[in-house]
Amino acid sequence: MKIGIVGLGLIGGSLGLDFRRLGHQVFGVARRLETCTQAIAAGAVDQATTTLASLNTVEVVMVCTPIAMIEPTVKEIAPHLAADAVITDVGSVKGAIAAAASQHWPRFVGGHPMAGKTEVGLAAAEAHLFRDRAYVITPLPQTPADAVETVQTLATDLGARVFTCDPTVHDRAVAWISHLPVMVSSSLIQACLHEPDEQVRYLAQQFASSGFRDTSRVGGGNPELGMMMARYNQAEVLRSLQTYREELDHLIHQLQEKDWAAIEHTLAENQAARPSFL
Amino acid sequence: MKIGIVGLGLIGGSLGLDFRRLGHQVFGVARRLETCTQAIAAGAVDQATTTLASLNTVEVVMVCTPIAMIEPTVKEIAPHLAADAVITDVGSVKGAIAAAASQHWPRFVGGHPMAGKTEVGLAAAEAHLFRDRAYVITPLPQTPADAVETVQTLATDLGARVFTCDPTVHDRAVAWISHLPVMVSSSLIQACLHEPDEQVRYLAQQFASSGFRDTSRVGGGNPELGMMMARYNQAEVLRSLQTYREELDHLIHQLQEKDWAAIEHTLAENQAARPSFL
Repeated sequence: MKIGIVGLGLIGGSLGLDFRRLGHQVFGVARRLETCTQAIAAGAVDQATTTLASLNTVEVVMVCTPIAMIEPTVKEIAPHLAADAVITDVGSVKGAIAAAASQHWPRFVGGHPMAGKTEVGLAAAEAHLFRDRAYVITPLPQTPADAVETVQTLATDLGARVFTCDPTVHDRAVAWISHLPVMVSSSLIQACLHEPDEQVRYLAQQFASSGFRDTSRVGGGNPELGMMMARYNQAEVLRSLQTYREELDHLIHQLQEKDWAAIEHTLAENQAARPSFL
Repeated sequence: MKIGIVGLGLIGGSLGLDFRRLGHQVFGVARRLETCTQAIAAGAVDQATTTLASLNTVEVVMVCTPIAMIEPTVKEIAPHLAADAVITDVGSVKGAIAAAASQHWPRFVGGHPMAGKTEVGLAAAEAHLFRDRAYVITPLPQTPADAVETVQTLATDLGARVFTCDPTVHDRAVAWISHLPVMVSSSLIQACLHEPDEQVRYLAQQFASSGFRDTSRVGGGNPELGMMMARYNQAEVLRSLQTYREELDHLIHQLQEKDWAAIEHTLAENQAARPSFL
């Protein structure tokens, strides 16, 4: 199969490595010529250019750009494609993207391979990145079934655990386990920075260990990515934050009331439930 | 030096391994005879019994029991000790403990080696656990200076980064970077469990990856330990939670107002500030 990949960063580059390994022919598009050269050298693409029009012969286009660029990319590429080509993306929000992109290309199938790493960019790309990871596919009711099947097959061939659901259901589920953690973790760092006593703030920094490191990790990550989660999944992130705030208030109340048994019960419930998420 | 260690779990066992390596003679006390046998076999103690009275010849006692048992242990052991013996502990809260324990033994010096691991118990004990980790010593104004120096020297010999501060300052600093993360993380798990739609809840569990894993880790840990943090450091944990809640409300407001620039600015501030804690 001829596959085009727009955006040769961590995800685009890793997809290219896997698709070539699986015998597909991979055409890359990047903004900078330097990235094209690097992608060819890394074996992530068979060829690469800086122009979307170069993808006019591909059967599937994977849009691996930042979220804000997905819809404009689909719009720009549409006039160049064969009528039966399929476009999919890898954005971490789906509701806003799937509806808009499908306007430009009815054979657009939203996708979200859930395989982040701390490192970003082509240099971090690796084969088998998606093996055993969730890959969510989010067709609209009117999305052609054969286009959905094409993306499902590609995702399955990557070794991913493939899920197919409504874009809204995706966004709601992802808000809980990906976007809400960023907001919760961000507020933790902010709170610590607001300690007014300089000695306490200094010692807090000195004492911080694995508990703080892990809980603050995603809130101290890429600011643009975190903002995009909030922006493109606003309704669901807000919904999850409201529930979170209720749980927090509940805990504050238990602390004020010295209801230690209730707090221990909640923590025991967490300990029992957490493995079902991992 | 003759050192007694009461409680042969992760911390007590690890201290024993290090102190024996450093040439001290280590006397262990555990509740169960089986633990005594295991501690001797592991090289964590020179000898061990189940009775506190066996420590009548030691120069320093390290109380490594759960928080709730520290004060009762100091009270019980006091009548057996030489007048110039020093007692210290390893509890993660200090205000409540230091005041109460000093009533029973004026040469009590509060201590907190910050070296947790996920695993607990003697089997998890290891040499060099405290190397390069913070070890906080929290004397009261009336604590004899030579007793403080004894504990400072022992902690320094372990290779730890030794800090000496007021118990209240310790509890305030630790609330930020150790106890608040547990509360924040606990409420995250609770919120996710409160998603009413079964399909969304199921998919959230399936999609959860490293972001959720790290942010939920301490909230899904040992329930008794988490409850003890809340119980014995109630005032400071509540104080940190109130600030946290303000930051969270601030973020919710920015989301409602679609103030994406402010959210990105906050996240950028986090990204810049987080390394100062690690």
